[in-house]
Amino acid sequence: MTEIKTAFNSRNFSPEVLAEKLKNQHFADSIDIINDLDIVERVTILSLLPLDYVIELFDKPELEQSAAILELLPINRAVEILDGMSADAAADVFQEMDKETRTRLYALLKPLTRAELKKLTSYPDHTAGALMTTEFIAIPSNWTIQKTLDHIREVERTRETVYTSYVIDPKTGTLLKAVSLRNLILASPDEQILNVPTHDSPITISPFTDHEDIARLFQRHDLLSVPVVDENNHVIGIVTVDDVLDTMVDEMNEDAYKFGGMEALNKPYMQIKFPEMMKKRGGWLALLFIGEMLTASAMQYFETELEKAIILTLFIPLIMSSGGNSGSQATSLIIRALALRELTLNDWWKVIIREIPTGLSLGFLLGIIGITRIALWQKLGIYDYGQHWVAVSTTVGTTLIGIVTFGSLSGSMLPFILKGLKFDPASASAPFVATLVDVTGIIIYFSVASLILSGTLL
Amino acid sequence: MTEIKTAFNSRNFSPEVLAEKLKNQHFADSIDIINDLDIVERVTILSLLPLDYVIELFDKPELEQSAAILELLPINRAVEILDGMSADAAADVFQEMDKETRTRLYALLKPLTRAELKKLTSYPDHTAGALMTTEFIAIPSNWTIQKTLDHIREVERTRETVYTSYVIDPKTGTLLKAVSLRNLILASPDEQILNVPTHDSPITISPFTDHEDIARLFQRHDLLSVPVVDENNHVIGIVTVDDVLDTMVDEMNEDAYKFGGMEALNKPYMQIKFPEMMKKRGGWLALLFIGEMLTASAMQYFETELEKAIILTLFIPLIMSSGGNSGSQATSLIIRALALRELTLNDWWKVIIREIPTGLSLGFLLGIIGITRIALWQKLGIYDYGQHWVAVSTTVGTTLIGIVTFGSLSGSMLPFILKGLKFDPASASAPFVATLVDVTGIIIYFSVASLILSGTLL
Repeated sequence: MTEIKTAFNSRNFSPEVLAEKLKNQHFADSIDIINDLDIVERVTILSLLPLDYVIELFDKPELEQSAAILELLPINRAVEILDGMSADAAADVFQEMDKETRTRLYALLKPLTRAELKKLTSYPDHTAGALMTTEFIAIPSNWTIQKTLDHIREVERTRETVYTSYVIDPKTGTLLKAVSLRNLILASPDEQILNVPTHDSPITISPFTDHEDIARLFQRHDLLSVPVVDENNHVIGIVTVDDVLDTMVDEMNEDAYKFGGMEALNKPYMQIKFPEMMKKRGGWLALLFIGEMLTASAMQYFETELEKAIILTLFIPLIMSSGGNSGSQATSLIIRALALRELTLNDWWKVIIREIPTGLSLGFLLGIIGITRIALWQKLGIYDYGQHWVAVSTTVGTTLIGIVTFGSLSGSMLPFILKGLKFDPASASAPFVATLVDVTGIIIYFSVASLILSGTLL
Repeated sequence: MTEIKTAFNSRNFSPEVLAEKLKNQHFADSIDIINDLDIVERVTILSLLPLDYVIELFDKPELEQSAAILELLPINRAVEILDGMSADAAADVFQEMDKETRTRLYALLKPLTRAELKKLTSYPDHTAGALMTTEFIAIPSNWTIQKTLDHIREVERTRETVYTSYVIDPKTGTLLKAVSLRNLILASPDEQILNVPTHDSPITISPFTDHEDIARLFQRHDLLSVPVVDENNHVIGIVTVDDVLDTMVDEMNEDAYKFGGMEALNKPYMQIKFPEMMKKRGGWLALLFIGEMLTASAMQYFETELEKAIILTLFIPLIMSSGGNSGSQATSLIIRALALRELTLNDWWKVIIREIPTGLSLGFLLGIIGITRIALWQKLGIYDYGQHWVAVSTTVGTTLIGIVTFGSLSGSMLPFILKGLKFDPASASAPFVATLVDVTGIIIYFSVASLILSGTLL
C-alpha cells in the first residue's frame, strides 16, 4: 500500500495505472491513498474506478471531502453514486453539500433515494434517526423461508446488512419478530417465517434514542443491528454495529479532548493547521484564565492577612492543587457513571451523601501528610516556620480537609448541573473544575487562618 | 423486568417460579436480576434454569461472580456448562477459579474443551490471543457451497459466529480466503467454495495484536469478526465484534478514570464500598500531594523575593493554573493521537516543533489578557499595584509566555515518555501534568521577577 502511494507521488505511474492498482486494495487502504491526493487528482481517480467500487468508498465516513468531490464529478456520475450509496451515508454527504448543488442533484435522484434522504435528514444529531439506514430486509409474516431467502438474494446488493430479517404484519405494518440469517439457514425452506423459533421479543429503539444508549444496548445484548421503530411499532430503519463502533470512537475522542479542557479536533493532530489549533485551544484557555483571575481578586481581598503572615503563601499552591485534584477525580467518576447510566439526574443527592464522607477522609489523609511535612522540616531544621509553626500547620491541615471535601463535592456535582442544563456532562473538564475550586480554596484558606491564627500571627 | 425483581424480593414467588419467568427474558435482563440475588439464591436459580439458557448466561461477561457460582454448582453441571460455553468466555471464567477447583474440573472436561482452555489461557492480557475464541467455521477449500452450508447447520450451536467461513488449504492448513454467509447464500449450491467471489484478501491479525489496534481495524474495515493467524498463516481463532465493543467500553472507562487522576473502577460508582473508594482515590491523591510539596520548597527558596515583593504572590494561582491548563490540553491531545496511531513514539520531535510556536502564541494571548487586567484595575483605581505596577505586569505577562510554553511542551512529551517506558500513555493524568508544571511555574515566575524587578521591587 505504501509502495503504491510512493510510486504515484514520484509520478511513476499515471492516474489510469493508479486506478487499476487501487481496485484490488481493501477499501480502507484505497481511501488512505485517495485522501493524500489533491482534490483534482481525487476526482480523476474516482472517475476512473468502477462505479461499484466508488460507491463502496463513498459509503465509508473515512473518505475525506466526499461532498466536495461529488460536486466536482460529472453530475450523472454523482447521481449514480448517491443512488447507489447506503441511505445513511448518502444523507451525511448530502447535508455537507452547498445548497445549490443539493437542489440540482436532488431533482435527478431516484424517487426512493429522495424519500430516504428526506426522512434521514430530519432527525437531530446524535440520535438513532440520524445514524440509521432505511435499507433493511422487511418480510411479510405470511412468507416462507424459501421466499425470504430468494428475496434476500435479490435485494442483497441494496441492503447494508442482510444478517437480520424483520418480520412485518402485512396488514398493520408492525414489527412481529426479528429473524437472523443464522436461523433462516437452519430452518427448512418450506416453513413459514413466522414459525422460525427465536428466543425472545425483538429489541427495538426509537429514532430519538441517543448514541450512548445505542452503544450500551449493542454491548449489553451483543447485537449486530437493531431496528428503529416509530410509536406504532413500524420499522423505519436499522442501526448497524459498524456505525455504532464509529460513533463510539468519535465519542471517546470528543470526551478526552473535552476533559483536557479544549474543543474536540476533527482531524489528526499533525494535520491541524496552526490557526485552527489556536482556536481549539486558545478559546478555552483564555476563558479559564479569565475565570482564574478571580483568584487574584480573592488574594487582594486578604491583603492584610497576606502581609502579616507571609508564611501562609508558601502553601497556597499545595492547597489549591489538592482541591483541583480531588475535584477532577470526582468529576471523571461521575461523568463515566452518567454515561454508563449507572446514575441518573435524580441521583445527585445520593452522590452528595457518598462524597461528603469520602471528601472528609481524603482531606484528613492529606492534612495528616501536610502537618507531618511541616513538623518534620521544623524539627529537622530544614526550614523555620517561626514560633507559631504549630498553629500554621494546623491551619494548613484544617484547610486541606475543607478544600478536598469542597473539591469532591463540586467536582461531582458539576456533571449533574451541566446535564440538568442540557449540556453534555463530559464538558466538565479537569481545568474547569480546578478553576472553580481554586478561588474557593483561597477563601477557605484565609478564613481558616483568620480563625486559628487570630491573636498570634494575624 | 423490574416487576419480576420486586416480586421475587418481596418473596411473592419461589425460585422455581422465578426460573420459569427468567427463561422468557432477554439474557441481559435475566443477568441483571440474577446479579441482584445473593450467591446461594443464584446457585439455586441457575440449577433450575435449562442448561442451554444457563450456558448463554455464562457466556456474557456481565454475569457477576460466575467463577464462584460454578464452584458452588454440582460438579457435573459445572462441567456441562464449561463444555458448552464459548471457548473465550470459558477461559476467562476458568482463570478466576481457585486452583483446586480448576484442577478438579479440568480432568472432567471434554478433551476439546481442555485443549482450547490451554491455548486461550496462554496469551497475555490485552492481546487478540486472550480475546479470541477458538470456535469458528473452518472449511477445506475443496468443499462445495452445499457441503459448507450443511456443515454450518450441523455445527451452528457450538460456534460463536457463523457469519464468516474461513477457507483452509486442506494440505498446508493455511488460510486461503474468508467467505461471508451473505456470499454463501448468494452462490449456487454446487459451486466450489474456493470460487465464491470475494473482494479482497482476508484481513488477519496476530495473537499478539493489542486491543486498541483490533478496535481500530474493526472500525476501519467494518468487520464483524477477524481471524487470528500464527506465523504460518494457520487460523488459531477469531475475534468477534461483540468482544471488541466490550473491550472498547472498558478502555473508555479506564482512560477516563486515569485522566482524572485515579485508579480505574471495576464496579458501578454506587456499588463501590467506602474502603475501596478510598484506596482508588487516596493513593494517587496522596502521591500527587507529596509531589506538589515541592512547590512549598520552591517558594521557601524564594523567601527573600517574596518578602520584598508581596504583590507577586497575588498572581501565583493564576500563573500556576495557566501552566496546568495548557499542559492538560496538550496531554489529552497526544494521548488520543497515540491511541489512534496518528503518532508513533518516533514522532516526538515533530510534536515539539509544533508545540513550541503553539505554546508561545497561547502564552502571548494569556499574557496580553493578564497585562490588560492589571493595567485596567490600576487605571480604574480598583486596586493599587504600587508605583512599579508596569514592571509587575510585565513580569506576569512574560512569565505566562514561559509557563504556557513549558506546560504545552511537558504536557505533550509526558505521554511519549510513559509510552517509551512501556507504561500506558493514558496514565498521564491532568493532575499529574499540573503537579509537574506547578513547581516549574514558581521557579519560572521568580526567575523572571528577579530579572525584571531587580533594582526596583527586588
